[in-house]
Amino acid sequence: MRTQVGIIGAGPAGLLLSHLLHLRGIASVVLEKRSRDYVERRVRAGVLEQGTVDTLVEAGVGARLLREGLPHHGIELRYGGAGHRIAFEKLVPGRSITVYGQQEVVKDLIAARLEAGGDVRFEVEDVALHGLEAEPYLTFGGERLDCDVIAGCDGFHGVSRPAVPDGVLRFFERDYPFAWLGVLAEVAPSSEELIYSQTERGFALHSMRSPTVSRFYLQVPPDATTGEWPDERIWDELRARLETVPGFTLTTGRIIEKGVTPMRGFVTEPMQYGRLYLAGDAAHIVPPTGAKGLNLAVADVRVLTEALDRFFSTGSADLLDGYSEACLKRVWRAQHFSWWMTTLLHTFDSDDDYGRRLQRSHLDYVTSSEAAATTLAENYVGLPW
Amino acid sequence: MRTQVGIIGAGPAGLLLSHLLHLRGIASVVLEKRSRDYVERRVRAGVLEQGTVDTLVEAGVGARLLREGLPHHGIELRYGGAGHRIAFEKLVPGRSITVYGQQEVVKDLIAARLEAGGDVRFEVEDVALHGLEAEPYLTFGGERLDCDVIAGCDGFHGVSRPAVPDGVLRFFERDYPFAWLGVLAEVAPSSEELIYSQTERGFALHSMRSPTVSRFYLQVPPDATTGEWPDERIWDELRARLETVPGFTLTTGRIIEKGVTPMRGFVTEPMQYGRLYLAGDAAHIVPPTGAKGLNLAVADVRVLTEALDRFFSTGSADLLDGYSEACLKRVWRAQHFSWWMTTLLHTFDSDDDYGRRLQRSHLDYVTSSEAAATTLAENYVGLPW
Repeated sequence: MRTQVGIIGAGPAGLLLSHLLHLRGIASVVLEKRSRDYVERRVRAGVLEQGTVDTLVEAGVGARLLREGLPHHGIELRYGGAGHRIAFEKLVPGRSITVYGQQEVVKDLIAARLEAGGDVRFEVEDVALHGLEAEPYLTFGGERLDCDVIAGCDGFHGVSRPAVPDGVLRFFERDYPFAWLGVLAEVAPSSEELIYSQTERGFALHSMRSPTVSRFYLQVPPDATTGEWPDERIWDELRARLETVPGFTLTTGRIIEKGVTPMRGFVTEPMQYGRLYLAGDAAHIVPPTGAKGLNLAVADVRVLTEALDRFFSTGSADLLDGYSEACLKRVWRAQHFSWWMTTLLHTFDSDDDYGRRLQRSHLDYVTSSEAAATTLAENYVGLPW
Repeated sequence: MRTQVGIIGAGPAGLLLSHLLHLRGIASVVLEKRSRDYVERRVRAGVLEQGTVDTLVEAGVGARLLREGLPHHGIELRYGGAGHRIAFEKLVPGRSITVYGQQEVVKDLIAARLEAGGDVRFEVEDVALHGLEAEPYLTFGGERLDCDVIAGCDGFHGVSRPAVPDGVLRFFERDYPFAWLGVLAEVAPSSEELIYSQTERGFALHSMRSPTVSRFYLQVPPDATTGEWPDERIWDELRARLETVPGFTLTTGRIIEKGVTPMRGFVTEPMQYGRLYLAGDAAHIVPPTGAKGLNLAVADVRVLTEALDRFFSTGSADLLDGYSEACLKRVWRAQHFSWWMTTLLHTFDSDDDYGRRLQRSHLDYVTSSEAAATTLAENYVGLPW
């Protein structure tokens, strides 16, 4: 079996790449370890940058996103007994974010790929990479897929990155001394906007997935387990961290999913080796505070699509050779912004009183200086490609 | 002997306070441990915010400052082999900074006080504070000075702050794992603008005091001594850290002074006790990176002058009671900005590779985003009073 681009992973990166390549007449096969049902239900990110929305719409997979996605023109920073709005429409006119679950993007992309006769294989076992230096091919479940290029879109724990020989890639890592407990609940959002709440008890985020489904996050110890967080404790803690301003009441409902996410920054340099190109979480991880993970994956895929188009249409590998460099500036910008949002809003046990005052002064500045608020807004809605 | 305001310390804070009170018809006596010659030669800060310049000019002590001070409409951030200008005239129109040595401000203020018949006493021994709760007075060299209010303007190592009973004040502190070696040299500046240079060898600052005197700073280990830094080593290191862009050559000359300054953040809360009010370094210290120390002292003195004017003209102590709170917001803003500039530009041995990439991404952002550059510029020229 032969294709032009062998894509490992049917997450947003792999599926979008396959779709964009198809639009340019480039063939690909997507290999996914999990079932279609699993990837279509996997709850992950939910905040799409303006450029991500534009990309999906331009690619013809944005109809439902435009219909069901929730456009947001600001977020609230809540601390010290008051809420402060970061108003995108004023700070970064014409740009906003759209709340639309990652699994919905995945559903739309799978539907588009299958409708176009795309080759997306689920529950594929034992994927392995070979011949990365010159003649790449993939093996899986007893089959062999020859290809010109391999795209590793299989996430942080995937097989692509470890297939690169030792010593070739350089890894950069930052662990945070806390995790996020993510909660999905069947209840209408308690506020129209996302609320980033900084308290002495720790950080909490009020978000949503639809007019009837709310999404919450709680800063928890790094080794926390969902077993330690029965529903009642979750609601109590969310109330304690979100009901900190007059007039705000948290509406509670049935919790339908909970999970603990580690907070980590991670970057691979370069993001390529021979004929293998890594995209999305396979190459880099950000703490979710800045909502950049999915958007970075889309940015990688845009760059990779252009590079592959040039390669297959002209034979020139110059853009492919420069893929990693073209991506890494944005990757590190997102790392810095995510670190910045994380330190701005979380409680660090290691912080002394000086550090806590510094954090408060920083929050006061971000919510009172138009320039400082703009740095948050322009990163949040996404800097230009 | 009796006066209205007993002022401890003839640095910029104490002298400016005495002068501003005089303009409002309020009597004061300034007590200074050192000689007039010493305080007039003591090399310290040299960057005046727009508001500091305005304050001195409005108070009638700005003639020489306007004549000899060097207005600057930008600074250069130098890193990664290139210089990047932060252009105040574009980012914060109408606001700039003026380079004018702190000791020149001190000379101008002493001259003004003495010309107006002000009582400024130098080489005063054994100053002690008494009766802070209700009937304050100062003793020194066998004399007693009764006063309504005491202003503690005697710096970080002065006697004022320790005169407050234990447990009343809360201290916030941050030590940095490096110091600054400050160098004064008889040589024309090698560039018209201040250059903040970040290198793997550590931070360096190219500054000036006049068209014929340059001022330099080098990041050095916290326990460094001037003995370890003979002139030749200083020039070698300055060249290594500043000659990092094509076409820039450091002009060298005779070094006339050198000294090591610890890098520290420190805040006292509150900045007052009974009839004692602390101003300037007696209440707070910032690392010098953001050039905020002298300017913060001027801000304190402005607030204190208003409060004392109200107290002596109406008997109301409401502004005096709110003095500390009125100052601390600006104090913490300056602490945060100084920490921000310091971490942006210095080499931290504790930083891992991830931290170094984060710092580079941050520098790239500050020098490419107008919003981010504006946050630097607006803090550097000074936020509104």
